[in-house]
Amino acid sequence: MNGRMIARVLGYILLISAALFLLPLIAALWYRESILPLLYPLLAAAALGAPLALVRVKSTQIFAREGFVIVGLGWLLLTFFGALPYWFSHSLPTFADALFEAASGLSTTGATVLVDFEAMPRGVMFWRLFTHWIGGMGMLVFLMAVLPMSGKFSMHIFRAEVPGPTKGKLVPKARQTARTLYLLYIGLTLLEAALLLCGGMSFYEALLHAFATAGTGGFSTNPASIGGFGSHYIESVITVFMLLFGVNFNLYFLLLIRRWREVAKNEELRWYACIVCGAALLLALGTRERYGFGEALHQGFFNVAAILSTTGFGTVDFTFWPEWCKWILVLLMFSGGCAGSTGGGMKLSRLMILDKTVLAELKQMVRPRSVQRIEMDGRRVEGGTIRAAAIFAVLYFFLLVMLAFVLSFDGVDLATAFTASLSCLSNVGPGMTQAIGPAGGYAFFSIRAKLFMTLAMLMGRLEFYPILVLFLPRTWRK
Amino acid sequence: MNGRMIARVLGYILLISAALFLLPLIAALWYRESILPLLYPLLAAAALGAPLALVRVKSTQIFAREGFVIVGLGWLLLTFFGALPYWFSHSLPTFADALFEAASGLSTTGATVLVDFEAMPRGVMFWRLFTHWIGGMGMLVFLMAVLPMSGKFSMHIFRAEVPGPTKGKLVPKARQTARTLYLLYIGLTLLEAALLLCGGMSFYEALLHAFATAGTGGFSTNPASIGGFGSHYIESVITVFMLLFGVNFNLYFLLLIRRWREVAKNEELRWYACIVCGAALLLALGTRERYGFGEALHQGFFNVAAILSTTGFGTVDFTFWPEWCKWILVLLMFSGGCAGSTGGGMKLSRLMILDKTVLAELKQMVRPRSVQRIEMDGRRVEGGTIRAAAIFAVLYFFLLVMLAFVLSFDGVDLATAFTASLSCLSNVGPGMTQAIGPAGGYAFFSIRAKLFMTLAMLMGRLEFYPILVLFLPRTWRK
Repeated sequence: MNGRMIARVLGYILLISAALFLLPLIAALWYRESILPLLYPLLAAAALGAPLALVRVKSTQIFAREGFVIVGLGWLLLTFFGALPYWFSHSLPTFADALFEAASGLSTTGATVLVDFEAMPRGVMFWRLFTHWIGGMGMLVFLMAVLPMSGKFSMHIFRAEVPGPTKGKLVPKARQTARTLYLLYIGLTLLEAALLLCGGMSFYEALLHAFATAGTGGFSTNPASIGGFGSHYIESVITVFMLLFGVNFNLYFLLLIRRWREVAKNEELRWYACIVCGAALLLALGTRERYGFGEALHQGFFNVAAILSTTGFGTVDFTFWPEWCKWILVLLMFSGGCAGSTGGGMKLSRLMILDKTVLAELKQMVRPRSVQRIEMDGRRVEGGTIRAAAIFAVLYFFLLVMLAFVLSFDGVDLATAFTASLSCLSNVGPGMTQAIGPAGGYAFFSIRAKLFMTLAMLMGRLEFYPILVLFLPRTWRK
Repeated sequence: MNGRMIARVLGYILLISAALFLLPLIAALWYRESILPLLYPLLAAAALGAPLALVRVKSTQIFAREGFVIVGLGWLLLTFFGALPYWFSHSLPTFADALFEAASGLSTTGATVLVDFEAMPRGVMFWRLFTHWIGGMGMLVFLMAVLPMSGKFSMHIFRAEVPGPTKGKLVPKARQTARTLYLLYIGLTLLEAALLLCGGMSFYEALLHAFATAGTGGFSTNPASIGGFGSHYIESVITVFMLLFGVNFNLYFLLLIRRWREVAKNEELRWYACIVCGAALLLALGTRERYGFGEALHQGFFNVAAILSTTGFGTVDFTFWPEWCKWILVLLMFSGGCAGSTGGGMKLSRLMILDKTVLAELKQMVRPRSVQRIEMDGRRVEGGTIRAAAIFAVLYFFLLVMLAFVLSFDGVDLATAFTASLSCLSNVGPGMTQAIGPAGGYAFFSIRAKLFMTLAMLMGRLEFYPILVLFLPRTWRK
């Protein structure tokens, strides 16, 4: 294993994260708060990162193993340093809480243990929502965009960090692509911030909520989340942008280079559109007596967008909705948005592959000699991709029930344990019971539960493997 | 498709089911009750079955498709005729209830909609528990044992009806094997009945509970289930037999032909033993303050045996146990017993294959060029078996959440919908909330919910495909 190269890349990551602390630090200066909660982590990350980045390497070559280790350790390091501002500002009671909040931010989950929103300095709050934006763009892919690296290096990192069942054709030109995608990401974020500013949010709130939407995160500066702003305009803007950030970014890339047809024919996008409209309509029907149909449709679209894109912003407390409406949201939590988006979950395209596979299996059973081809966007899906998707789903369900089991030791009821686990693994945020719903939070969980959820959120963001391989003895053997 | 052959085999099934009504009819005569609720279905099954069984066939050859259709339609027919005694005796309020109870009996689930146990005639009650025994042995495999059929015929039926990820080496000699297995099944049932008789049960109760244990069903003549007899001896006997019927029957076959070594080395059996002891000990620790350690251990073993073997008999109301203890039971409900047993669920060996596959996948990721062999009992597991196990798991989870969604329209809470769905698909019986727990029942569900659960229980027993292919248009095309 090329340990020196791993150390060096981890050094780069720390240096970048040190640089990232500058933005909230400026906010702290602007609001004339103490900058120490942000300065300490900045200095610590730089002090550890600089010598690591200067490690001499004999070879820059890395293999799949190093790729996973870099991504896994990199995100754990980020989480640790990301937790320091909460700790130094005494905003959260324990370091486990700080780790939870940092992992929730970076993994773009948006589940929060924060109770006293007023007590958190504005600079630290800036950091809190900014972590969504960092987590959404992917630290390592960002590194690829700014540093000259070999094609192979990029490929291994890309594979380990970017979610979705297939990594697409864009990988070979990873560096160029990554830059274009980031420009898009930044552009959409600024556009949303501008639109929110028009809706009466302050510059600070508009920018921070744009960060949180772009990363499909879900943290808010307001304890009542988006509902706290009481503006239909703001809710609508955020609905649209949550949906936009739930789409595969490669499609925007294709739009930029004017390959409209491919976008229009994209199967995953069509499913996404159908699911959003269908689910929103069903929710509107289920809640029309409560809100009136117009408002119910508005709330339906907002909440479908919030859950399917795994953002998790809240307006109303859906835990009081009819049970079947809550189940629709649970189904959306399993799915998540499109592959290659900033959202979490199993990803639509993976579900589509599995859906087609199960149907093909049924047909095959009836006629064992028939040949069943599984296609996506007119191209054949390879056996390896199907196998990987099926194993991913199995692993997902296994981790889901095991995490719920761990949470049950806190004495929470079955529905809370199950949906908290689901919410963490799919990087959504809220769960389906009052305690952890849009009006609740995760503060009441034990330290043990918080640490397990911290790991689960990171696993969900990285699609399990980069974290899991760290626990495999074979990874560390020569 | 060989429609005539299908008709003929369905005719046989009806004739056998007519014959099966004789046993409860004798019980009704003995207790001097009206025999009409049992005579009508007997005559109806015979009247429909006789002409079908006489259909002339050009060829007795069938293929996989016919195998699935025979098993699927056969079980649906059995369920329909099995529901008639409840209907003619007015023991249940609607025909949907009767269908639910029949499917619950035949699928060896043991979930009940019966409320007024006193009002059900003893002959019909005999039928109710007898259906577990019929369902456990498998109607079609039974047919194979008593009728001369071609080897190919047997193979297709065996594949469609017998649960488990691999069908083993015993298939080629299917007829001979089936006979031996039935003798074992009958022998163990009679042994249990004798032991229960010694514990103070009446002959009627002892025989019926032996039927229900053998099929890993869970119906009882007592509204308080096994707990209603208040005897530790009876509970212990039933614990042992629930565990015995959760074991792969092929192992008993191997014991009979004195291949001890293969039994001792059987991986699934080892896991089974470890899980039973481990889970029982954990439950004992979790409930020792409630019962004292000795009693807690006794209850732990009983309930682990009841849930893991998917029998679902009850003694105490475990819905009042600590949340994590309930989650242990939920995990056991997913698993179910060994392949080739009368139990439901995903089956231990399937979980073992998936577990090994996920681990191999992780190792492969770290070292892409390494070759990962997956083995069970020292033999390599083929790629096709792994693929089938993974697809089965995906289908299982898909059906699980979809059925829970359907149940949620009844307004039941998330935990009730989820564990009712789990309990039906895994053929367990009780759920994890008070309403459907050991002290509850399924009577309060709507007719829609009951019909969906009826289908789900049958799907669980037949491992989905024989029922699912009936809904596939391709099955019925030329």
